[in-house]
Amino acid sequence: MSVVSGNLRAGLPGLGQSDSEWFDGLVQTPNARIERILSHGQVTPQGQWCDQAEDEFVVLIEGAAQLQIEGESQPRQLAAGDWLLLPAHCRHRVVWTDPNQPSLWLALHLRT
Amino acid sequence: MSVVSGNLRAGLPGLGQSDSEWFDGLVQTPNARIERILSHGQVTPQGQWCDQAEDEFVVLIEGAAQLQIEGESQPRQLAAGDWLLLPAHCRHRVVWTDPNQPSLWLALHLRT
Repeated sequence: MSVVSGNLRAGLPGLGQSDSEWFDGLVQTPNARIERILSHGQVTPQGQWCDQAEDEFVVLIEGAAQLQIEGESQPRQLAAGDWLLLPAHCRHRVVWTDPNQPSLWLALHLRT
Repeated sequence: MSVVSGNLRAGLPGLGQSDSEWFDGLVQTPNARIERILSHGQVTPQGQWCDQAEDEFVVLIEGAAQLQIEGESQPRQLAAGDWLLLPAHCRHRVVWTDPNQPSLWLALHLRT
């Protein structure tokens, strides 16, 4: 495996260029899949939960978002630099991302 | 495993508060160890190489640094947002970090 590299902000679509969230896989190792995600206003569709078989470490690199974790009374407010480790099968929904600025996430899906 | 969370910039030591690089483990999963590192001017000691048994995905969140990879003719210049996947046993050295601003790294050590 050689050294792969890039910049988290390189080649991002401009605001309004994509109607849906934008996903970009960066690297894959035997135990991890790393991607960046750009949101600008998108949320998890009403009534849906994200329920993943892998642990997910996610960092909001820039922007602003709200993440609802099942069983918690209120969404968590996320600002630049905020990170969470979501254990496998921890159901969660993105209930808000700022429509006025891009929100850039770095997400690591970690085999359990 | 419950949801663990934090902010990458929370509780960082101030410039000059630490003579050495500052390491802070964030989370550990069965296949990953995630930490943040703060440098301000420190480098890998002369003549030493970092040689790790695990893959390392590293992102420079902010700051500026130069990373030498063994066998490459010149150090790589790193700016905010730059990331690399360093395969296990890819020998590397940090040859420069900006002494005038903090350089904040997010490092993921991934079991191979």
